[in-house]
Amino acid sequence: MRYDIAIIGTGPAGLEAAITAKVRNKNILLLGSNNLSSKIESAHTIQNYLSLPEVSGEQMQEQFRKHMEAMDIKITEDRANTVYAMGDYFAIQSHEGMYEADSVILACGMSVAKPFPGELENLGRGVSYCATCDAALYKGKRAIVIGYSKEEEKEADFLAEVADEVIYLPMYQEETSLSDKVKVMKDATPVRIGKIDNQMVLALNNGCIEANGIFILRESVAPSQLVPGLEIQDNHVVVDRALKTNLPGLFACGDITGAPYQYIKAAGEGNVAALSAVSYLADKKKK
Amino acid sequence: MRYDIAIIGTGPAGLEAAITAKVRNKNILLLGSNNLSSKIESAHTIQNYLSLPEVSGEQMQEQFRKHMEAMDIKITEDRANTVYAMGDYFAIQSHEGMYEADSVILACGMSVAKPFPGELENLGRGVSYCATCDAALYKGKRAIVIGYSKEEEKEADFLAEVADEVIYLPMYQEETSLSDKVKVMKDATPVRIGKIDNQMVLALNNGCIEANGIFILRESVAPSQLVPGLEIQDNHVVVDRALKTNLPGLFACGDITGAPYQYIKAAGEGNVAALSAVSYLADKKKK
Repeated sequence: MRYDIAIIGTGPAGLEAAITAKVRNKNILLLGSNNLSSKIESAHTIQNYLSLPEVSGEQMQEQFRKHMEAMDIKITEDRANTVYAMGDYFAIQSHEGMYEADSVILACGMSVAKPFPGELENLGRGVSYCATCDAALYKGKRAIVIGYSKEEEKEADFLAEVADEVIYLPMYQEETSLSDKVKVMKDATPVRIGKIDNQMVLALNNGCIEANGIFILRESVAPSQLVPGLEIQDNHVVVDRALKTNLPGLFACGDITGAPYQYIKAAGEGNVAALSAVSYLADKKKK
Repeated sequence: MRYDIAIIGTGPAGLEAAITAKVRNKNILLLGSNNLSSKIESAHTIQNYLSLPEVSGEQMQEQFRKHMEAMDIKITEDRANTVYAMGDYFAIQSHEGMYEADSVILACGMSVAKPFPGELENLGRGVSYCATCDAALYKGKRAIVIGYSKEEEKEADFLAEVADEVIYLPMYQEETSLSDKVKVMKDATPVRIGKIDNQMVLALNNGCIEANGIFILRESVAPSQLVPGLEIQDNHVVVDRALKTNLPGLFACGDITGAPYQYIKAAGEGNVAALSAVSYLADKKKK
């Protein structure tokens, strides 16, 4: 099945893109989390989302959820790893599998984390962003997992079922609750990644560890890694006023397009991106 | 008194700009109507303003009004005629007087009406947009008023107190209720404006009328007339992604910047325009 529009992200930009696309009768895939946005969830009072005076992040999420329910829009709980522009359509490789869509809207927010030195050079050659995808390669081997949220512990556990040894570095404050097979290293800060004789090396603030592979599990992948060939400037996706990117059929909206990082700005852009996608699809059909 | 930011328009773009500027502690002037937006008021169901599933235009206005009240933002009921860039600040000439502001945000929507042939050439030389402003010039003279909404009848009545003869052409369907001194011409469609020997001539679909002056009263003035020197393309204000216009300190948002004409797009842009104005003011202070 090929979707008309795949929307990646369930913050205000992605949700608004979804409702606008639905109003225009498009067949959409909305990839994200039923918790919507962890950034909003933890937000203090929001004063300037016009129509919601003085709300907490939780109340805002609740309003957004109601809107999704009223329009019967379902979220597919999955995470995109890579979006490939195939010419006529897009292929989205995710943790759970593969999707196809005629157009794609990136609304996955701003990845705060900068890649480690050596990370991008070794991506796909010892560094991976998806344990579910690559676990099979680590049978009887040793892997390091750098996890940026408690959510990632599930992936580490899954990896430990296959791999011989899994070392887990939590990049968050909460207590970990992992299976016994996973060895947790607290208070170790990754500094850089290297490769010596086909063996991956993770340099830390206080030493280093060797392994066959390193998994870096962040909530959002840097846009340049997510979509090969995408034009990026200052770590943001370059868009025009219609929110078109340099790749025909691919649109971006919300924090990923740059400051200001504001909820109503993101929602407004989600609307414009969806209408630009609708118009792209109409033009495509004419050809 | 000089305001930090003058915001012209009380649709979603202007309201969002106002709440964002208020959150940033700016001293604002919000010019518009306590009825907010006549376009929204008459809107049918709106489905895609994220957080307000399935609302009528009236319900949406009610939510907006609550937000303004919660933040104690007052609307100045007045209409801008011309915004002059004075170099260091802006002077706003309105129906009721004159305001000064360090920066201006245009959020006055899309003027559907095209100027009549001959209108712009004679602006200020027989053609006027403001009866309250220019009435004194018509003492003992004859004036034509082209009114685009029932609201304008007050202006025609006021003019009639001074002028010798006032001919009123209603450009709307509702019944007129004007003072006896005003002569109403129904079913006359203005076609073009000319000048013969210092006498203004209004050509109609079925004849023509002569007068000393012609008043054209529309809800919104075309952006090119509102701000001399403003860069316009296809009847829209040219803006960049930060919603800056070609005039430093002047920003534009909402329908006036172009399609899509959508409420959430307008609100999102209002937010960005306000933050750009805030940053402009900060830079200005540093100098």
